[in-house]
Amino acid sequence: MSITQKEEKKVFGGRQMRFEHVSDVLNCMMQFSVFLPPQADQQSVPAVYWLSGLTCTDENFSSKAGAQRTAAELGLALIIPDTSPRGDDVPDDPDGAYDFGKGAGFYVNATQAPWESHYHMYDYIVSELPKLVEANLPINHQRAISGHSMGGHGALVIGLRNAERYASTSAFSPIVHPTAVPWGRKAFKGYLGDDVSSWEAYDATLLLKKSAGVALPPILIDQGDADNFLAEQLCTHYFTEANEVVGAGAQIRMQPGYDHSYYFIASFIEDHLRFHASNLR
Amino acid sequence: MSITQKEEKKVFGGRQMRFEHVSDVLNCMMQFSVFLPPQADQQSVPAVYWLSGLTCTDENFSSKAGAQRTAAELGLALIIPDTSPRGDDVPDDPDGAYDFGKGAGFYVNATQAPWESHYHMYDYIVSELPKLVEANLPINHQRAISGHSMGGHGALVIGLRNAERYASTSAFSPIVHPTAVPWGRKAFKGYLGDDVSSWEAYDATLLLKKSAGVALPPILIDQGDADNFLAEQLCTHYFTEANEVVGAGAQIRMQPGYDHSYYFIASFIEDHLRFHASNLR
Repeated sequence: MSITQKEEKKVFGGRQMRFEHVSDVLNCMMQFSVFLPPQADQQSVPAVYWLSGLTCTDENFSSKAGAQRTAAELGLALIIPDTSPRGDDVPDDPDGAYDFGKGAGFYVNATQAPWESHYHMYDYIVSELPKLVEANLPINHQRAISGHSMGGHGALVIGLRNAERYASTSAFSPIVHPTAVPWGRKAFKGYLGDDVSSWEAYDATLLLKKSAGVALPPILIDQGDADNFLAEQLCTHYFTEANEVVGAGAQIRMQPGYDHSYYFIASFIEDHLRFHASNLR
Repeated sequence: MSITQKEEKKVFGGRQMRFEHVSDVLNCMMQFSVFLPPQADQQSVPAVYWLSGLTCTDENFSSKAGAQRTAAELGLALIIPDTSPRGDDVPDDPDGAYDFGKGAGFYVNATQAPWESHYHMYDYIVSELPKLVEANLPINHQRAISGHSMGGHGALVIGLRNAERYASTSAFSPIVHPTAVPWGRKAFKGYLGDDVSSWEAYDATLLLKKSAGVALPPILIDQGDADNFLAEQLCTHYFTEANEVVGAGAQIRMQPGYDHSYYFIASFIEDHLRFHASNLR
């Protein structure tokens, strides 16, 4: 389990790095980015994992969110993976759709041909990537997880299913109920097949509804009310209703005037990192 | 003199906007971006002009520098122009070079064919663009100017030649002495011709050397010492030497470990905006 460093740039006194490695879980070569805060020169630090949305790589959040400023202040590493397996040997959507295949792994473990040989983003994020970074970088076992849109879905699902592994979870503009909306239904049918009962383990609203007696992490969600995808794909109200029924205590904030872009993420990433830092202590 | 709004996104409580207009000075259609801070809803606000570097458009700084956070706090508008005239009717470098022609206007008024019919970026930045934004947006006549690399050259030259129009000038990684380095010599020869005496009005180091008795604006420069272009193209030491000889009082900071990228700009843009705000008061 080794990683090869490809880039390093200084930012806010810390190090923005890019690595390449062979992924056993995804069965291909992968790239990911890491921000190490200045504190990592002295000691191992906690990490916030960031899961990006459709069409993104590790570079969008790295260059556009401005998250390194607050992460440097708080002594948090940022772990920023890609959004799907990559490479010429990895199958892609036959029509080149933006919402399935490469750039659209949806953080599930695919069970259907031809996707099941590579598309295991759930296991990659939960197991392989933490082992890699904790073995090779000054990063300790304290983790939190966040993400945007498809990555917000991933962060909520992974946080809800692994409260022992993540101190807290947060999301910007998440797909909260993928089994009920077009993006999620298309992806889950493709990766998981027609048996909709197999979809439930990847639906944050359904997981929350069934969470009675289960330990849940602290949850923070920000959603812009001028987001073009809110009505059809994100549908925050499903999660809000489940949160109220279950009494899960998630903070769900509707932010007036904000859209789906990285300008929205940049505006509130400081809040999310402070939220995670307070739970990582 | 009208401008047409093409985009608007909310960020840090303010408005990131994109406009299109017919430029009389550049003789083509142009786009530029503006950030209006929340304070502009109540009153007209001062503006910091940002001049970008080679290959950039108005979008690089808008999406990567994170400048809106501090601008929103300080009540500063950001005016972010393109780096050259644009469009099918505008001549470009015949070899498609990145350092001449489109994306590389060098903030001069060209005098040589075929460039002189469009490449008047100096007049566009100093005259046409301020008139446009001050006539059409809640922006007052208080101005400061900053930029990166080729745009740092532009900001220094424009600030030094127009102290009555700009409260202060600053630069990241500027080309401080273009008549002495490859990027500048190629551009000036192309746009201004073989008479090197015509180049002097666009060289910050030469302008500073000849500034005895001339009012100068406060100047702040940040330069990364791990910048790949420092030794051959940027050559900060020329400006530092002139600054000492003239006693101009420019603050010139070498920042250890930083390179030429937007990660460097993001790390110090807050300092620059606070510097400009203090001079705009």
